[in-house]
Amino acid sequence: MRETDWIQRFIVPLVKARGADRLRDDVALLSADGPIIVTMDTLVEGVHFLASDPLNTVGQKLVRVNLSDILAKGAEPVEALLSISWPRGRSETEFGALMAGLERDLDDFGIALIGGDLVSIDGPLTLTLTLTGRCLMAGPVRRSGGRAGQALLINGKIGWGQIGLQAAKSDPASEAAMRYRVPKISSIFAAQVVADFARASMDVSDGLLIDAARLAEASKCGVTIALEQVPLAAETDDLAEILVQCTAGDDYRILISAEPDQNVPGFTKIGQLTESQGLQLAYNGNSVNPPSTLGFEH
Amino acid sequence: MRETDWIQRFIVPLVKARGADRLRDDVALLSADGPIIVTMDTLVEGVHFLASDPLNTVGQKLVRVNLSDILAKGAEPVEALLSISWPRGRSETEFGALMAGLERDLDDFGIALIGGDLVSIDGPLTLTLTLTGRCLMAGPVRRSGGRAGQALLINGKIGWGQIGLQAAKSDPASEAAMRYRVPKISSIFAAQVVADFARASMDVSDGLLIDAARLAEASKCGVTIALEQVPLAAETDDLAEILVQCTAGDDYRILISAEPDQNVPGFTKIGQLTESQGLQLAYNGNSVNPPSTLGFEH
Repeated sequence: MRETDWIQRFIVPLVKARGADRLRDDVALLSADGPIIVTMDTLVEGVHFLASDPLNTVGQKLVRVNLSDILAKGAEPVEALLSISWPRGRSETEFGALMAGLERDLDDFGIALIGGDLVSIDGPLTLTLTLTGRCLMAGPVRRSGGRAGQALLINGKIGWGQIGLQAAKSDPASEAAMRYRVPKISSIFAAQVVADFARASMDVSDGLLIDAARLAEASKCGVTIALEQVPLAAETDDLAEILVQCTAGDDYRILISAEPDQNVPGFTKIGQLTESQGLQLAYNGNSVNPPSTLGFEH
Repeated sequence: MRETDWIQRFIVPLVKARGADRLRDDVALLSADGPIIVTMDTLVEGVHFLASDPLNTVGQKLVRVNLSDILAKGAEPVEALLSISWPRGRSETEFGALMAGLERDLDDFGIALIGGDLVSIDGPLTLTLTLTGRCLMAGPVRRSGGRAGQALLINGKIGWGQIGLQAAKSDPASEAAMRYRVPKISSIFAAQVVADFARASMDVSDGLLIDAARLAEASKCGVTIALEQVPLAAETDDLAEILVQCTAGDDYRILISAEPDQNVPGFTKIGQLTESQGLQLAYNGNSVNPPSTLGFEH
């Protein structure tokens, strides 16, 4: 790898924002108007994606895991910085595939690449993206805005991450495996709904139960979830199966609290915030003991 | 490593900015007023620092390589996001040392840590910092602002990076080795001088000659350097020795162009920008052929 050549050939074509000055400078100028938020997520080969995953899908996943955080805050994505630690043994063709996947998602989601770094590594491919977002209202919708009595709601289905990971290992060509490699994430419309309706909001990435507990804790209240109301990727009446899907990570759905009388477009009510602390589960009106592991603990 | 625990114990204490919400959220709110610039640099164990380097010095180096870019643009540092890919085999004590070095430099330079990521890696320690800066004038001083006839100037001495790297390998306890591990960088005063006087400016990190050629190219002109005027870490009359110091990287000095009649505080004139393209070298009035390698080509 000659970093300068690869930057010119593969990365500069992705850079269109004026403040980036075509990567000819040490820094980029952020296009700041209105409240700007920022997130940073890293993917490591063998930890967050499989060594066998096609790199175009890895590029897309990198954008999406970061974008999901921005959307969950009621914001639209704006600009990104990309750091690539590239294993010496991987080919230029693979690098091109990574960049093609990145470009596809950056373009689809209207994100401007404005800078970053490219270095060699004697180890696993390691990717870090920093993504900024412009809030659709005065500031980000925090995890901490929930109050007892508010409804708990989620958009889309829970469990695709877990089903997809199993499929990626056993049947890599399946549709479910593709959903592991390139997770479906929320739309900018969902971000607008968050801005309009949500009191508290977060990205569900470590498992519904653990993330619901975190939202409640940040909001200094408790939470109860009616498991039969949770939309599942694999519908089932088996409580153990339901809990597996509700404790697996990589779902990238948005979990919010909202005033109880609101009809929130695209979101399904699955529970409510409570005065009593902690997480309580029910299934068809019967109390259920929370599993010992609520989700992916880093 | 339990990521959540380590974040609470080692990282949250470093996080004081309001917009970071004590890392309890998916994103941080940037404190944006005025033009905000951003840079991102990655350090990989075995590539950008030695596996034997104490991790407190690695933490300081990570801050400084990024900060040097911000200062060179005539800006003051504001906020940082940190991604750590931590090798499973390294100890908690080492993690504490890394964070102590980071905290020291973040505090010394007035930088607020506002977010980031912590993941495991089966490979070398890999660190990425994203650093924002607030411009001290209307925008960043670009590499491209130079014009033929302007003077070329540098602050401080060239060559410490090369001397320090040799020392770090042969005599790790020496003062020079310490300067490799924790490079001296420019002060906020130098950033103000850049804002006040510089037409073009950049961080010298890959070698004086290659970076001077880059500044000239970005400014669509040529550059000539009088080698006897370059302040060197190891003073010498030996032309070959001078060229070694002028083509080594890791110096983190600021290279600027300014109007020829200006007296620029803290900067030494070493050449000028020219109509004719390319890099020309002279030593005591005699033309010198540029070496085949002008600096560190990534």
